[in-house]
Amino acid sequence: MKLNIAVLAGDGIGPEITQQSIKVLKAIAERFDHEFLFEEAVVGASAIDLTENPLPDATLDLCKKSDAVLFGAIGDPKYDNNPAAKVRPEQGLLKLRKELGLFANIRPVRAFERLLEHSPLRPDRIEGADMVIYRELTGGIYFGEKTLSEDEREASDLCVYTAEEIERMTHLAFEAAQKRRNKVTLVDKANVLETSRLWRRTVKEIAKDYPDVELDFLYVDNAAMQMIINPKQFDVILTENMFGDIISDEASVIGGSIGLLASASVGKEHALFEPIHGSYPQAAGKGIANPIASILSAAMLLEHFNLLEEAAIIQAAVDKSLEMNICTSDINKESSYSTEKVGTFIEGLI
Amino acid sequence: MKLNIAVLAGDGIGPEITQQSIKVLKAIAERFDHEFLFEEAVVGASAIDLTENPLPDATLDLCKKSDAVLFGAIGDPKYDNNPAAKVRPEQGLLKLRKELGLFANIRPVRAFERLLEHSPLRPDRIEGADMVIYRELTGGIYFGEKTLSEDEREASDLCVYTAEEIERMTHLAFEAAQKRRNKVTLVDKANVLETSRLWRRTVKEIAKDYPDVELDFLYVDNAAMQMIINPKQFDVILTENMFGDIISDEASVIGGSIGLLASASVGKEHALFEPIHGSYPQAAGKGIANPIASILSAAMLLEHFNLLEEAAIIQAAVDKSLEMNICTSDINKESSYSTEKVGTFIEGLI
Ligand SMILES: CC(C)[C@H](C(=O)O)[C@@H](O)C(=O)O
Ligand SMILES: CC(C)[C@H](C(=O)O)[C@@H](O)C(=O)O
Repeated sequence: MKLNIAVLAGDGIGPEITQQSIKVLKAIAERFDHEFLFEEAVVGASAIDLTENPLPDATLDLCKKSDAVLFGAIGDPKYDNNPAAKVRPEQGLLKLRKELGLFANIRPVRAFERLLEHSPLRPDRIEGADMVIYRELTGGIYFGEKTLSEDEREASDLCVYTAEEIERMTHLAFEAAQKRRNKVTLVDKANVLETSRLWRRTVKEIAKDYPDVELDFLYVDNAAMQMIINPKQFDVILTENMFGDIISDEASVIGGSIGLLASASVGKEHALFEPIHGSYPQAAGKGIANPIASILSAAMLLEHFNLLEEAAIIQAAVDKSLEMNICTSDINKESSYSTEKVGTFIEGLI
Repeated sequence: MKLNIAVLAGDGIGPEITQQSIKVLKAIAERFDHEFLFEEAVVGASAIDLTENPLPDATLDLCKKSDAVLFGAIGDPKYDNNPAAKVRPEQGLLKLRKELGLFANIRPVRAFERLLEHSPLRPDRIEGADMVIYRELTGGIYFGEKTLSEDEREASDLCVYTAEEIERMTHLAFEAAQKRRNKVTLVDKANVLETSRLWRRTVKEIAKDYPDVELDFLYVDNAAMQMIINPKQFDVILTENMFGDIISDEASVIGGSIGLLASASVGKEHALFEPIHGSYPQAAGKGIANPIASILSAAMLLEHFNLLEEAAIIQAAVDKSLEMNICTSDINKESSYSTEKVGTFIEGLI
């Protein structure tokens, strides 16, 4: 198979982790006789530095004509601490999601057997936990109108959803549940929000098409608690953009490190793969960032193109590195390996 | 001291837990020669059943003329499963918060030594954790304009904040930090939301008046993760309404049971005290609900009127019940005590 892959490594630790995924994908291409072509482009703070635009047209064009995007991370403290900044790295990612129509963000979360001792949660609570979070990615309060009054003393953000946006997400989540344990949990705040009530109504309606899938509902506050008390109850979680952002970062504690969590963002025509962790600027350039989330995102990329054997080989190689404790310091405190060493070890197993 | 206390026991387990707090407050009154007068009124689903209004005028009037409100819980599954219901129990609580001007919700969270083994988190992660969450309670997306299109296929919720709303909350949080460990963490999503950027700007400005208090910032997704990875880092958390709802329910896992968490909601003229747990309808009438969150809310009521010794006696009695394992089944699985037994035990220690 021939794949054109746009590489948007971004800021902070983005470049060093993405480098490891590329190594691994190249090894797969060689072993299976695929042709993977990588083309790089700038995004985020590094793009602002070069072009004053967090998503330059050239980057967007490259993504549009590629088969898939391999994304690193974006964000820089110099913007975080400047709430008045008019241009911010995050706008690059948000615009990219919107322009590519990546409406569904898919985040698998599971407890790795070898890392049970590593989680802040008790092993018996998480052993066997295995869920996937379907987060709506191009709607809600992220993309609604924002206002700031002239005297800069009143601000607003609008959260909007349409039934169409909810329907297409819901189908994806239910189809995923059918391939898993046949359960979907809708996370919302239907006791307060009108948009949540629209979600609840719409999802209930669609659920009728999937009689083999059980549907239940949790308010987001309760879900944030249940995620820790009893994560094993979840199979597929379906939720809107902001709640998905919060719940999926929280869920990362189950795996023992946010450095392990991959994600796929898909739409009708495009797909983007990125670790759920951020740019972690304090670690940039130090060779301590965990490349596994990025490498597992590369595996999700292969799965997306139905290269299932290839994806499984990467997953097995990652499991091996965890098992043998060839890990960065977030996981292996005593004798940690560098970002590059971990990447090379996994590459070597392909 | 003479206090007129409005009792709004509400739905589900609300009445049975509130009954225990009243017993305890009466014991305090007797011991310290105070006069506490209790007057009851309906709210929530039970008020809808009686009057078709989740907050009848008589209830609101009673609250307005009382010195404090002791609140139970509201909510009923028959409304949750009916997204089209025009009247809902939650409206009663939200309207009450707004009408009484209860803009600050204060939720202390700490790890109880005796319950370390009970939390889903590892004991070493939580031992010594001690924080208080200052959640803005009468603004944000809870109270902004809501719309539903005529064809019912598009909905919206508006999140609005003004600098004034943020300023008054911020002062309370910084004053609280000065009496604690001098640290405030603002939880927001300033990389995406305009309202969050207003929060960040405003809080930074106010922070200048409190040079002895350290201020830091966390995005809400990261905060949801940090709450579990390292809860000891938090002293005072300051946040907007929706984020506070999610983060504080999540934080309840630290104490080992949501049945332990009390809250105070205060404004310029009024104050209301309620457990953070909900109406837990599945448990209603079974005598298994934990009354401690409500009893500790009663202690917060006394603190509010500067009855510090009285409040401390209740807290000590609660600690004793935990220590001796005179607890409901959420905490004491083997030989649990009923709601009423726990209440009577604590009352007996006053
Ligand atoms: C960087 C930020 C805008 C982004 C988001 O909130 O969506 C990130 O937290 C994520 O989850 O991908
Ligand atoms: C019942 C509900 C409206 C309420 C809220 O979301 O504020 C509750 O969850 C709380 O936290 O007090």
